[in-house]
Amino acid sequence: MTASSVREAAERARVAANTLRGVTRQRKDAALRAMADALVSHVPAIVEANQIDVTAAENNGTSPALIDRLTLTPERIADIAGAMRALADLPDPVGEVVRGSTLPNGLQLRQVRVPFGVVAMIYEARPNVTVDAAGLSLKSGNAALLRGSSSAAETNEVLIAVMRSVLVDQGLPVDAIQGVPGRSHDSVTELLTARGLIDVVIPRGGADLINSVVANATVPVIETGVGNCHVYVDADADIDKAVTIVLNSKAQRVSVCNAAETLLVHRDIAPIFMPRMVEAFRDAKVRIHGDEEVASYVDLGMFAPVNDEDWAAEYYSLDIAAGIVDSIGDAIAHIRRWSSGHTEAIVSDSQSAIETFITGIDSAAIMVNASTRFTDGGQFGFGAEIGISTQKMHARGPMGLTELTTTTFIVTGDGHIRE
Amino acid sequence: MTASSVREAAERARVAANTLRGVTRQRKDAALRAMADALVSHVPAIVEANQIDVTAAENNGTSPALIDRLTLTPERIADIAGAMRALADLPDPVGEVVRGSTLPNGLQLRQVRVPFGVVAMIYEARPNVTVDAAGLSLKSGNAALLRGSSSAAETNEVLIAVMRSVLVDQGLPVDAIQGVPGRSHDSVTELLTARGLIDVVIPRGGADLINSVVANATVPVIETGVGNCHVYVDADADIDKAVTIVLNSKAQRVSVCNAAETLLVHRDIAPIFMPRMVEAFRDAKVRIHGDEEVASYVDLGMFAPVNDEDWAAEYYSLDIAAGIVDSIGDAIAHIRRWSSGHTEAIVSDSQSAIETFITGIDSAAIMVNASTRFTDGGQFGFGAEIGISTQKMHARGPMGLTELTTTTFIVTGDGHIRE
Repeated sequence: MTASSVREAAERARVAANTLRGVTRQRKDAALRAMADALVSHVPAIVEANQIDVTAAENNGTSPALIDRLTLTPERIADIAGAMRALADLPDPVGEVVRGSTLPNGLQLRQVRVPFGVVAMIYEARPNVTVDAAGLSLKSGNAALLRGSSSAAETNEVLIAVMRSVLVDQGLPVDAIQGVPGRSHDSVTELLTARGLIDVVIPRGGADLINSVVANATVPVIETGVGNCHVYVDADADIDKAVTIVLNSKAQRVSVCNAAETLLVHRDIAPIFMPRMVEAFRDAKVRIHGDEEVASYVDLGMFAPVNDEDWAAEYYSLDIAAGIVDSIGDAIAHIRRWSSGHTEAIVSDSQSAIETFITGIDSAAIMVNASTRFTDGGQFGFGAEIGISTQKMHARGPMGLTELTTTTFIVTGDGHIRE
Repeated sequence: MTASSVREAAERARVAANTLRGVTRQRKDAALRAMADALVSHVPAIVEANQIDVTAAENNGTSPALIDRLTLTPERIADIAGAMRALADLPDPVGEVVRGSTLPNGLQLRQVRVPFGVVAMIYEARPNVTVDAAGLSLKSGNAALLRGSSSAAETNEVLIAVMRSVLVDQGLPVDAIQGVPGRSHDSVTELLTARGLIDVVIPRGGADLINSVVANATVPVIETGVGNCHVYVDADADIDKAVTIVLNSKAQRVSVCNAAETLLVHRDIAPIFMPRMVEAFRDAKVRIHGDEEVASYVDLGMFAPVNDEDWAAEYYSLDIAAGIVDSIGDAIAHIRRWSSGHTEAIVSDSQSAIETFITGIDSAAIMVNASTRFTDGGQFGFGAEIGISTQKMHARGPMGLTELTTTTFIVTGDGHIRE
């Protein structure tokens, strides 16, 4: 797809969006359920296309972990279809009255949720994102431009074709869901600069993708998912809870943005906490990056010296940076310096320490005596999640359907004029 | 101020913001009231500095309208101080719990408003904006970087010095309010690209300023105040109300963003509506830009031919573009093509026409049988207004203190981990 054809796709998306704004929940949900059925009935074609992508990835020497993310099986397609049906069951954010009042002069004021219009998603090699993103956009009344990875191109093409044919069957605008093939970098640049045609770009992927999008976009962006999360173990922490929370934050699943990457321990508790923590990390095969003081607690085989790259790192692996701090103030200063603003946790039984931490930390989520792994739309009970925003504007933390809408003030009078 | 000193100012603002996040409403309001008092007690110094700016502007041949905007009198300073006191009386958005629940596993979830951090304002030659912006930022717990116009430099310097000395007296961080002198363009570029140091830039001014900020910023921007507003007079409009609303929208005050710039009239009502409207425009000295069909209703002396520049124009004058349309669909299509997304009005007694208009129009505000001039934070009852956002992300329409905040999820457990 050339740059100009990306622009044409965005223009078609804009026209589709103008129609979608007025489509009822009933029709949108019917389309989502029909898409779920169509995905299941097209399992052989989807798996066949996916095999082409998987074989190409294997021939390229792609890592087994990435190939696993790329691979679709009948079971996984059934799960994706199930998510689409669950999406249909969620309330429609469009039309929600956010606030309303009758003004002193009798004017009736309502602030009502409306779709953004055209949403572009730029993401990596997980084909389930193609369906998720299309479904979330449709449910919230937005047209979607989907720019997946070239390594999933064959799979995405079939998935998008299946969903588009349902749009046609349901009498909805077919260009409400469009793929932007990922072979060319120009197509990304064109997406990122289509002001007036694209209302928001949401990148989903690693830090490199997010940073490149933010640096080059002139359309509004919602940054998601870069997580350098910290756990601070306070002087007044319960040792058992602290060990359990740190281990869960780090090791329950390492390839996710809400996993912990740094442990900060108050000096007063380190002599009793660190030996227990090191024991737990040893069993879980976690390697600790620290300074000499940390090293004094750690077996040589599971230790590495820490440097600034470690403090900044999202390891996505069984590694953790660790530091011992003199005070909660030092812990907060460290987090302010290095955090990506995703999630930070404190383990403490001191109410004043907890309050100090909450006031001092400026991140999307703060966990008090709980694992960082809870920062998640599903865990928070929000239903479908588009991503976890690490920016401050518009959406911060787990994003649901609501965050794919904006609002309009509707003011109803009876010939009212300003005096 | 050189580029590097802008960066240093932003770094100082960040440090100040870290303190301000935790300051109670009581202390912020005390500072606002003390600033109001200090502005009044420094009237002679403020007026003296203002006279230097005014004299320079007169010598530069600045228009009387702009000189009027620049001029401060003791009465105007008293008004500015009064606005500061009114701000102190408004609720503090910081700490508001936006939503909260107890999750099935017992985790307590709260989404709480917190300050953005560092807010930069870029604006033109109205010194009252210096005080307004500083006050709104302080009230919402944000540090402010104020980049006014070089033509108001002497005035702004004194105003900022007065406010900073109150911050010192009140034991608040002095760098919570800083001026960024407007002599250099580099300083603007530096503000617009200080990612990580500045959380949001809000330009207040004309379309040129806004567009330049949007094109060059890599920090998040909230666009404000570009208003190409339309009034559509439907086939089923009440003629008296339509004439009154159009006249008020256009002519009650022409130099504001919520004034109407284009009138669209349904062909079925034009023969009875247009003569009445033209009569009202004649009395108000409004010039009509139209095609030949419009010309057939208008006296030669108050007519000009319309072109695309007119459809795009914010006249800020007693001019209006006018067109006759075949249908409400054509009116909506015209508005979609030309609107800046600020405010559009429909005058109609037909409920179905009103619904069609509301569904079809994608702007910050829609007026039904009311003047476009009502799109205003004060009119909406929101108290202090930072500006009127014409973008879809984060804030849309009149922005109050709430829109200068973001949120943090605070999740409280008792050793909770993910299974």
